[in-house]
Amino acid sequence: MAKNKKMVYFFGGGKAEGNATMKELLGGKGANLAEMSSLGVPVPGGFTIATSVCDEYNKKKGKWPAGLLSQVETNVKKLEKVMGAKLGDPSNPLLVSVRSGAAVSMPGMMDTVLNLGLNDSVIEGIIAKTGNARFAYDIYRRFIDMFGDVVMGCHHEHFEKAIHAAKVKAKVEVDSDLNADQLKGVVDKYKAIYKKHVGRMFPQDGMAQLKLAVNAVFDSWNLPRAEKYRQLNNITGLLGTAVNVQAMVFGNMGNDCGTGVCFTRNPSTGKKEFYGEFLMNAQGEDVVAGIRTPLPLKKLNKVMPKAYKELTALMTRLEKHYKDMQDMEFTIQQKKLYILQTRGGKRTAAAAVKCAVDMVNEKLITRKTAITRVEPDQLDQLLHPSFDSKAKRDVMTTGLPASPGAAVGQAVFTADTAEAWKADGKTVILVRLETSPEDIGGMDAAVGILTARGGMTSHAAVVARGMGKCCVAGVSDIVINEKAKKFSVGKTVIKQGDWISLDGTAGQVIKGKVPTVEPKLSGEFGKFMAMCDKVRKLGVRTNADTPQDAKRARGFGAEGIGLCRTEHMFFEGERIWPVRSMILAAEDYTKMLQEISDASTPKEKKAIARTYAVAKKQFEGALKKLLPYQRRDFTAIFKAMAGLPVTVRLLDPPLHEFLPQEKDNQAEMARRLKVTPRRVKEEVEKLHEFNPMLGHRGCRLAVTYPAIYRMQARAIIEAAIAVKKAGKVVLPEIMIPLIGSVEELKLVKDDVIDEINQVFKEKKTKIKYMIGTMIEVPRAALTADLVAKEAEFFSFGTNDLTQMTMGFSRDDAGKFLGDYVKHGIYAVDPFQALDQTGVGKLVEMGIQLGRSVNKKLKIGICGEHGGEPASIDFCHRVGMNYVSCSPFRVPIARLAAAQAALANK
Amino acid sequence: MAKNKKMVYFFGGGKAEGNATMKELLGGKGANLAEMSSLGVPVPGGFTIATSVCDEYNKKKGKWPAGLLSQVETNVKKLEKVMGAKLGDPSNPLLVSVRSGAAVSMPGMMDTVLNLGLNDSVIEGIIAKTGNARFAYDIYRRFIDMFGDVVMGCHHEHFEKAIHAAKVKAKVEVDSDLNADQLKGVVDKYKAIYKKHVGRMFPQDGMAQLKLAVNAVFDSWNLPRAEKYRQLNNITGLLGTAVNVQAMVFGNMGNDCGTGVCFTRNPSTGKKEFYGEFLMNAQGEDVVAGIRTPLPLKKLNKVMPKAYKELTALMTRLEKHYKDMQDMEFTIQQKKLYILQTRGGKRTAAAAVKCAVDMVNEKLITRKTAITRVEPDQLDQLLHPSFDSKAKRDVMTTGLPASPGAAVGQAVFTADTAEAWKADGKTVILVRLETSPEDIGGMDAAVGILTARGGMTSHAAVVARGMGKCCVAGVSDIVINEKAKKFSVGKTVIKQGDWISLDGTAGQVIKGKVPTVEPKLSGEFGKFMAMCDKVRKLGVRTNADTPQDAKRARGFGAEGIGLCRTEHMFFEGERIWPVRSMILAAEDYTKMLQEISDASTPKEKKAIARTYAVAKKQFEGALKKLLPYQRRDFTAIFKAMAGLPVTVRLLDPPLHEFLPQEKDNQAEMARRLKVTPRRVKEEVEKLHEFNPMLGHRGCRLAVTYPAIYRMQARAIIEAAIAVKKAGKVVLPEIMIPLIGSVEELKLVKDDVIDEINQVFKEKKTKIKYMIGTMIEVPRAALTADLVAKEAEFFSFGTNDLTQMTMGFSRDDAGKFLGDYVKHGIYAVDPFQALDQTGVGKLVEMGIQLGRSVNKKLKIGICGEHGGEPASIDFCHRVGMNYVSCSPFRVPIARLAAAQAALANK
Repeated sequence: MAKNKKMVYFFGGGKAEGNATMKELLGGKGANLAEMSSLGVPVPGGFTIATSVCDEYNKKKGKWPAGLLSQVETNVKKLEKVMGAKLGDPSNPLLVSVRSGAAVSMPGMMDTVLNLGLNDSVIEGIIAKTGNARFAYDIYRRFIDMFGDVVMGCHHEHFEKAIHAAKVKAKVEVDSDLNADQLKGVVDKYKAIYKKHVGRMFPQDGMAQLKLAVNAVFDSWNLPRAEKYRQLNNITGLLGTAVNVQAMVFGNMGNDCGTGVCFTRNPSTGKKEFYGEFLMNAQGEDVVAGIRTPLPLKKLNKVMPKAYKELTALMTRLEKHYKDMQDMEFTIQQKKLYILQTRGGKRTAAAAVKCAVDMVNEKLITRKTAITRVEPDQLDQLLHPSFDSKAKRDVMTTGLPASPGAAVGQAVFTADTAEAWKADGKTVILVRLETSPEDIGGMDAAVGILTARGGMTSHAAVVARGMGKCCVAGVSDIVINEKAKKFSVGKTVIKQGDWISLDGTAGQVIKGKVPTVEPKLSGEFGKFMAMCDKVRKLGVRTNADTPQDAKRARGFGAEGIGLCRTEHMFFEGERIWPVRSMILAAEDYTKMLQEISDASTPKEKKAIARTYAVAKKQFEGALKKLLPYQRRDFTAIFKAMAGLPVTVRLLDPPLHEFLPQEKDNQAEMARRLKVTPRRVKEEVEKLHEFNPMLGHRGCRLAVTYPAIYRMQARAIIEAAIAVKKAGKVVLPEIMIPLIGSVEELKLVKDDVIDEINQVFKEKKTKIKYMIGTMIEVPRAALTADLVAKEAEFFSFGTNDLTQMTMGFSRDDAGKFLGDYVKHGIYAVDPFQALDQTGVGKLVEMGIQLGRSVNKKLKIGICGEHGGEPASIDFCHRVGMNYVSCSPFRVPIARLAAAQAALANK
Repeated sequence: MAKNKKMVYFFGGGKAEGNATMKELLGGKGANLAEMSSLGVPVPGGFTIATSVCDEYNKKKGKWPAGLLSQVETNVKKLEKVMGAKLGDPSNPLLVSVRSGAAVSMPGMMDTVLNLGLNDSVIEGIIAKTGNARFAYDIYRRFIDMFGDVVMGCHHEHFEKAIHAAKVKAKVEVDSDLNADQLKGVVDKYKAIYKKHVGRMFPQDGMAQLKLAVNAVFDSWNLPRAEKYRQLNNITGLLGTAVNVQAMVFGNMGNDCGTGVCFTRNPSTGKKEFYGEFLMNAQGEDVVAGIRTPLPLKKLNKVMPKAYKELTALMTRLEKHYKDMQDMEFTIQQKKLYILQTRGGKRTAAAAVKCAVDMVNEKLITRKTAITRVEPDQLDQLLHPSFDSKAKRDVMTTGLPASPGAAVGQAVFTADTAEAWKADGKTVILVRLETSPEDIGGMDAAVGILTARGGMTSHAAVVARGMGKCCVAGVSDIVINEKAKKFSVGKTVIKQGDWISLDGTAGQVIKGKVPTVEPKLSGEFGKFMAMCDKVRKLGVRTNADTPQDAKRARGFGAEGIGLCRTEHMFFEGERIWPVRSMILAAEDYTKMLQEISDASTPKEKKAIARTYAVAKKQFEGALKKLLPYQRRDFTAIFKAMAGLPVTVRLLDPPLHEFLPQEKDNQAEMARRLKVTPRRVKEEVEKLHEFNPMLGHRGCRLAVTYPAIYRMQARAIIEAAIAVKKAGKVVLPEIMIPLIGSVEELKLVKDDVIDEINQVFKEKKTKIKYMIGTMIEVPRAALTADLVAKEAEFFSFGTNDLTQMTMGFSRDDAGKFLGDYVKHGIYAVDPFQALDQTGVGKLVEMGIQLGRSVNKKLKIGICGEHGGEPASIDFCHRVGMNYVSCSPFRVPIARLAAAQAALANK
């Protein structure tokens, strides 16, 4: 680097040598400070040492490049002039902060050093000037501690020991109870500690302090934690970190001082009003600490009208400049206003939506920008009840935030109890080790669900999200004793009937009742969503199994059903009995079909049918009983979704899920179906699977028992015909799950079509329908060019596809996935956000191969990822036609799809 | 087709118009008959209607092309001349057979029609000539039945009813007890039945019969079962079927007649000698039926020396011509020898090997041809004891032939009993619902294993094959009552101690003791294997977990260990106790590590270590106890494999597999480890997984508990150093299982390397080693370009890769995979032969991606497919370096690899 090359950039006094575009050279923080300064924002003056210097410094193994020292000295002089104070001058000392700041925000590097410039004589000057010796020694001992720890690597713990000893000696409990003399003693101790560990005296010269601090910032670029962070986040190609040296200002130098935080709009509601709070004669941390109660911003007008006027004018200007709601920190030092920071303000979902819509109306931003201003996931807040943010919470433990919302209810431990108590008008939370389809009734009856096992896509979590019901799952440190009807967390015991609260957004399990607030959707919400809909290319459908869910999702803007699961329908009310009766007859029934197909003469066939007459009657009779139920289900759903497509997935779970696992329930089944309990137990054992995820389920059931899908196909088409006759438009799409090969699809599909043609013949009418398949087995994606020959649509079931591609069972992975995310092996839980590198590659292959033989192939996604913004962006990029998600995520998906369309133009 | 185009091809009288190369036009059968005839083999004369005629016939919707009739008539005349007989001439009738025959052998088309040409007057002539009315009416009624059923679609059942009625009336049991008069009555009845169902009289004219039969052959080309067969087997591009019309000859026309079967070498031993048997005055079916005992071929020399001389000369000639052992059928009609068929003879493995080696020595075939002459799977016969083929078997039921061989032992129902009885000198067969790693000791003690659940790659099957032990698995119709120590199949009950026999090759479960024969490896076997080794490109390693297995495999020619599983080592003897103790401490130990890594001061860290001191001691102490055991294991294996590479897979199964599931065993564990039974039960429940296949196992264990792999890495390297010091060459390859991403591999690998470097430092020496990974999770194959950056070798674990790619659990799929193979969805069980379309695509991707970043990457396969010939061919084609399989499959793999090299030149 040439000696006369510019290495240091000044800002302050309404000017700056840098600007916002120079992030690479000045780092994010330095560029922003320069920009603000140029805009005339009264930021405390300072200078930035460029990132290129850090690179040079490292190449020179810790030596300053030639010319740097003189440039720093020149800038210190300039700063002294702008601030009207002098480094090391006891009568008017300049104090500075030193901070790191790379082009990309990057935790892991050096923390801030504040109040650099303090020394023994400056302290005396401050005491003389403020008359506050306690204040002076307090900032001095803090500075020695911070400088020692952060700059010189003398661990904070050593200083902590000394102040602890001082408190013991003074017989006080907290630091702030130490008086000036005692603190002076602490300062001496600190200096001794510093000398002992660093090996030198604490530096009294301001420039010496500054040089050491600058070196520490440079060195921190190569700290292992910083390198690790860059590696994990794929941050490459940066030169190093910049160093920001900025004058300190104090809001606590007297009653003409103060400090505060302000927002250009209300961050809670989005209303266009100045909003904020401040404290007189205080430091920034006092506002945050909450020991003194801050005053509302408006009051500043009374106390310091000039500063208030200046501040609000700045607020208006900065919002216009940055075209976004600003969150600003300010300090008034002896009546002079300084802005310490301005940035886009964090806001609630309601505020985000209102700001976005208002700013479009104000012509401050375009519609496209407005769409990018709301975080999709945030919208969830608007759709679920939430806890009163002011209420106290007695948090017992934390699990996975499986389904958002807030629930307060009495703990119960079985699905039956939940239903019974609900019938008695009680509000209950169902607490289970894990849930299974048998618990559906109880889950429906409960306001919230708590499980000890299972992950974000466990049965409990998926069903709860579908129901829009709060759920905390996989809380591994609760111990449930179902028999004794209680659970415990450490020593806290919750018995049946005790009140608990669940925060499904934070995953908290809370003792007692926490008051909740109901959601209200604003007019702006509708307007905002309409903006999104204009931009997005992806369709948004919903996963819904009931007319209620379908209606709710339609209200949220769903354009059809992308996944209507049929398994829950097999559990409802009385239906489970024919289902179980069918299962008991299934083996003999199948044997009969097999033997008949092997038999060579009509006579033999007849004899076989006679032998198995009972099983035949039982199996086919059960399906006959189920048919009208299913027809009713589909009729109601088709009506609720009239005019929109409805994708019905044929039966998916393994049959054993329909059998009772517990002894009492097995006994009940035996009584109801007039068999021995031993027979029931044998059936349960026979159907037991080691890995049910990879077992006899999905279309594999139809390969063995074609009659089940036939019944369902008949019910769907009969329902569709009925609804069409009632004058509504019906668009049924029949989806065959768990396909692994085209031959399998063809076999099952031919049966389904045959049954449908029979219905058409009987009813003497026809309707349009589609048949497609889920792509959820890796092999189906790998051979999609074959599968697509027999499918009119693909729906990627990315839950199962993720499980099989990554080899994780979603019900078991909770135990170790945390370690994976912690070690950075996977950036996020792959069940929450699609693993684009691995699973995504299969999805892309599936789409390309599928479309290569069938250009018209309609492609969607119906896994949980269909409601996750980053995954939706992926779906947009790979050219899907639609995403499908649970009703409560439909608005999120609409927004995310719009953002994806904008981001990938 | 031009009228004068040649449509019919004659053969007979030592000449032929076609030859062996004309398969496309004449079908396989027609071309062979022509070839034999040209060679001067005395086949009964006949002619073939070309396949192109079938095409023409179908295009003309069932009309004969112009000119065909006259060509057929001409050829009939020619045939009459050659055979010296005339169609329809009662005094000297020509009878013919009519058969279909396409270019590719294809079941599903028309069956044979024999004795065409019979009618009422010909019958009278035959009676007059032979004086045997019974014989005449019997062939006539058979002909009407066959012609009616096969040609005219009048079901055999109708004829069966009539003969049944005749037998009832005659009060006899079997057809052959009907006398001539009664059979004449049956003929009349048959003709009436024919008329009733066909609607016309039974045709009396020979040419009319022939035309109908030819039409039936043509029509059978388009039968659904034939189309289905072509579709399933991807047979396309064929014109149609040919029709073969051939003169009938009779071995049962008197004492100057006979019939027999002969082989040019002994098909049982391979010895070069004429071999066969014959019957005088008999039909071919009499030889097969076993009612009369045939005479050895040599006796023919005495009875009919001329025919014998002619036959043996032909045998010698045909073997030379076809350059393979021939299996021939012959008939002598009135002293004239006819050859009905000659083909490559089926032979035992021993014979196949001997023939191949002998024929090379005789310069009859090349080495390359010799290699293709032995079926790899056949070799299995040579390596396992087998049942005496003459012994009677009382087969109770059949299951999956999970591991070949023959076992005879007393049934026991627990692993402990197996071990105890073995210790008492008894021979036992272990009968289990399913096996788990807890049963290893018992499996080792037993001579055979029988399970009610699990497929070809279930725990029982894999372990048994590894041990070279006979196993029949997944016998779903046995009902095991472990408590009562018995099992039943239908009404047969086998109690503990009862003798049973297992045929692991056929999957049979047999009551009582069947005598067995031990295998002996011939000198030819070694020579044959050496030929294979010269040709093959693929290395062949073995999967072996013990020095015994390693030595055995080395004896079979293994070039290293491709998979040494370490989990079984954790069960042996006393070792299970430290393992279990470690598991009990694991959770607290992990918490400790976590909290220490989160702690910020050394003091905090110390305090945390104090809190968890007991867990730390217990966990680390257990590993310390395991280390010497593991070191000893590896030392013994390295010694057994000195000079060859040994791939050790680090611990793979989920930890719960090491805990006892049964109450008694849990109580024992509680006593041994001085905890409450409740604590044990809780641990078992805590570690329970819904889908253990996709659970906390493989390298995932190392992410959570790095100390386990560190202990194993240390044991491997310490053992290797010790063996090297003893003067042996050691080539350890450390394999990390279940990798899903490169970050995961890097994390685990870095730990392993760190530990190895510590060992090097302590021992002040270094050795060469490799670190690689299994590719068994689809994601690893999909991202192999990333994974290969951190791996020195890939070993495809195609068992798990198949499970995850196809979504089948190998333990559960047995229940429905049968349906899949039956419906032709998968041609074979994908756990037996690699699914090349789906799973194979991933394997290919993995290899290409892996080599794209790491050209030196060594690639092998260690799934069960590594020993399956078609899969080995695939491995050769995709460019793997080696296959690894169980010891007993090593010779099979060597042969299959050689065949693959020859087939893919």
